[in-house]
Amino acid sequence: MKAWILAVGSEMLTPFRVDTNSLAITEQLNRIGCDVRLKAVVGDDVSELAELFARGLGAVDLIVCTGGLGPTEDDVTRDALARACDVALDLDEGILARIKARFEQRGMVMPDINRRQAMVPCGAAVLENGNGTAPGLWMEMRGTSVLLLPGPPREMRPMLERVIAERLAPAAGSRGLFRRVIRITGRPESDVDAVAQPVYSKWLQASVPISTTILAKMGQIELHLTADAPDPQSAASVLESAVGELVAVLGQSVYSTDGRSLEEVIGALLTERQMTIAVAESCSGGLLASRITDVAGSSGYFDRGVVSYSNEAKQEWLGVPEALLRSHGAVSEPVAEAMADGVRERARTSVGVGITGIAGPGGGTAEKPVGTVAIAVVTPSGRAVRTFKFIGPREMVKFQSTQAAMNMLRLQLTEGASLHRR
Amino acid sequence: MKAWILAVGSEMLTPFRVDTNSLAITEQLNRIGCDVRLKAVVGDDVSELAELFARGLGAVDLIVCTGGLGPTEDDVTRDALARACDVALDLDEGILARIKARFEQRGMVMPDINRRQAMVPCGAAVLENGNGTAPGLWMEMRGTSVLLLPGPPREMRPMLERVIAERLAPAAGSRGLFRRVIRITGRPESDVDAVAQPVYSKWLQASVPISTTILAKMGQIELHLTADAPDPQSAASVLESAVGELVAVLGQSVYSTDGRSLEEVIGALLTERQMTIAVAESCSGGLLASRITDVAGSSGYFDRGVVSYSNEAKQEWLGVPEALLRSHGAVSEPVAEAMADGVRERARTSVGVGITGIAGPGGGTAEKPVGTVAIAVVTPSGRAVRTFKFIGPREMVKFQSTQAAMNMLRLQLTEGASLHRR
Repeated sequence: MKAWILAVGSEMLTPFRVDTNSLAITEQLNRIGCDVRLKAVVGDDVSELAELFARGLGAVDLIVCTGGLGPTEDDVTRDALARACDVALDLDEGILARIKARFEQRGMVMPDINRRQAMVPCGAAVLENGNGTAPGLWMEMRGTSVLLLPGPPREMRPMLERVIAERLAPAAGSRGLFRRVIRITGRPESDVDAVAQPVYSKWLQASVPISTTILAKMGQIELHLTADAPDPQSAASVLESAVGELVAVLGQSVYSTDGRSLEEVIGALLTERQMTIAVAESCSGGLLASRITDVAGSSGYFDRGVVSYSNEAKQEWLGVPEALLRSHGAVSEPVAEAMADGVRERARTSVGVGITGIAGPGGGTAEKPVGTVAIAVVTPSGRAVRTFKFIGPREMVKFQSTQAAMNMLRLQLTEGASLHRR
Repeated sequence: MKAWILAVGSEMLTPFRVDTNSLAITEQLNRIGCDVRLKAVVGDDVSELAELFARGLGAVDLIVCTGGLGPTEDDVTRDALARACDVALDLDEGILARIKARFEQRGMVMPDINRRQAMVPCGAAVLENGNGTAPGLWMEMRGTSVLLLPGPPREMRPMLERVIAERLAPAAGSRGLFRRVIRITGRPESDVDAVAQPVYSKWLQASVPISTTILAKMGQIELHLTADAPDPQSAASVLESAVGELVAVLGQSVYSTDGRSLEEVIGALLTERQMTIAVAESCSGGLLASRITDVAGSSGYFDRGVVSYSNEAKQEWLGVPEALLRSHGAVSEPVAEAMADGVRERARTSVGVGITGIAGPGGGTAEKPVGTVAIAVVTPSGRAVRTFKFIGPREMVKFQSTQAAMNMLRLQLTEGASLHRR
């Protein structure tokens, strides 16, 4: 089943407001196997909206449209649908009586303008609104079902749930779209795709087809797998084996297949091993400590952090020798290692991390340009030290530094362990 | 001038991702008087996107389309535009050379798949991308200008700004929507609106009308003022006096009227006063240090930070007396003050900040529930200590703690100074 989601309201065409109703609607529709093919936002303009309805009628199975059902002149959704279907708008006495009663209940007289909310395109079914005056409407035309819902989420959601339960789900059966996300770090998008594409491309033709989307975010890549399956059980089974196939080719660069963030993954690894951690940061400015402590329960393994921006802080609090700073420069592998060792010794933790680099925009040199970052990770079983060249503005260099440090830690802790951990 | 904004990417048709690029694009287009009439999100489907392009061509003046310019098979925007315009796609050697160079710069060989990014619909102009491999494209067809931009905001924004300055603004004339943002912290939304509404409501009827939107974000309120003006000069003058009127009634809770973030504001205050700062954080976990160091040039005033999660760290690195921790508890004003004093003395900075609290979800008690945070700010001219009760999940408590600490510092540094600083 293919659907469009439309949102009506000029305020969503300003720089301040984004349509979020469509996320909740998508979630509900996906659950019954309904695929959203287009989302659109239009202003309070009757002819533009009518044109959009007209394009969808006959082209998709379902159009869900939110907003524009209020009582004022710029609420044009009812008129637009009537125009697109080429039917008349009639006053529905039942709706009118309910709106009047709603006002009376609150000791008020219904303003005349609210009569607009009782206008119904000929042939549409009325959906009662328990939480507001605007009723919803359901219309079938040229093979397309059109669902008009009020804009406020607390009115929209219960009405949508009812329509799904009563009208859409029975027709859909147990079929649905089911998802898994694979998260990868330390590898560029094109490289991930070159390896993964031969694997996932064949799933589109499988009896339970899986479509795959690759998403590059700052410091990581996500593969979104969506199975169009007859029921949740068969979805779970094909997705599990699909995830396994991708992990087999992508190897250690996969850090999570169950939705967990990198900070959650390293938190779990430290907890399992009953290890503690302390971090010493320069260019990342506290972001590593902040990300590690975003995880609930991180006080169980995170002991302390130092943001040693000045050289004095590196010497006084981490014991980095002045000679080392002078001979190698603050941004160097020996200094990163001395920071990791220093914070680990002083905090008496299992793990120490040191990050030193040039976040920019200033401070770069020909030899060490902006984005040069040295990272050291020291654990009871060994140490890793690497220099990275990150690209991008200050916040991206900061973020990528923390991502790389956590990934180095993850790889050190899991070395030799099973690749596919869930 | 009428515009459509299209966003391409199947991930934005899932329940997980919303298109936010269109907000920034709308803002830029509004500034040159360009009216956004439709925003749409389509998946990585070449025929659906081509159909949408074809509908827009000849119907609107401008189509701005983001995303789908990556190197992989599901990046279909170039193909879709070529199909809608009925022109061929040709390989552009100049683009190919630049992409290859970008990979070489990072010591890598360009994967063959990236050749896709060098394909250009016949007749399109190439827009260079300083921040990524995907170039943008500009095409004129049937009276409509089509602008293809990469999806990642840091690649999209500078390219859009350049196109607006070089191609769109000169044609647009001087009329436009002009904006100012007033940022407020430490005051609830309803209180801000009660004070501000009588002031801004009358501006709608002015000869250069100003509409006002109030926007509550985590830890702050924004008032967006939009003037519909014949030229930038008259907009600047009415907006300047409008901002002045609002600042007069809102007072010290306004921290910026020029778009600056709170961390930029305190950075400027410290720089002006030639002061330095060190911070000691517990529940905020390094987020304060990270936000302060998000500002370019912060190494000029930020000396160091400690994330003292464990009590040992508080004692060893900040000299917080064990007796104080025992008698008042780690989350208390005396401990926050001892942390601020401790870090300030050890780092020999002008300013010291201490934050200690319960970020949750665990750790709360009846007396000190989750969200209880004690903050101390010590400056050469005095000290402030306060206890807050923040509401919300872990990340919100962390963020609000850093917001409150920076605001306390701002108020201490500006006490008695002019309210309306720009």
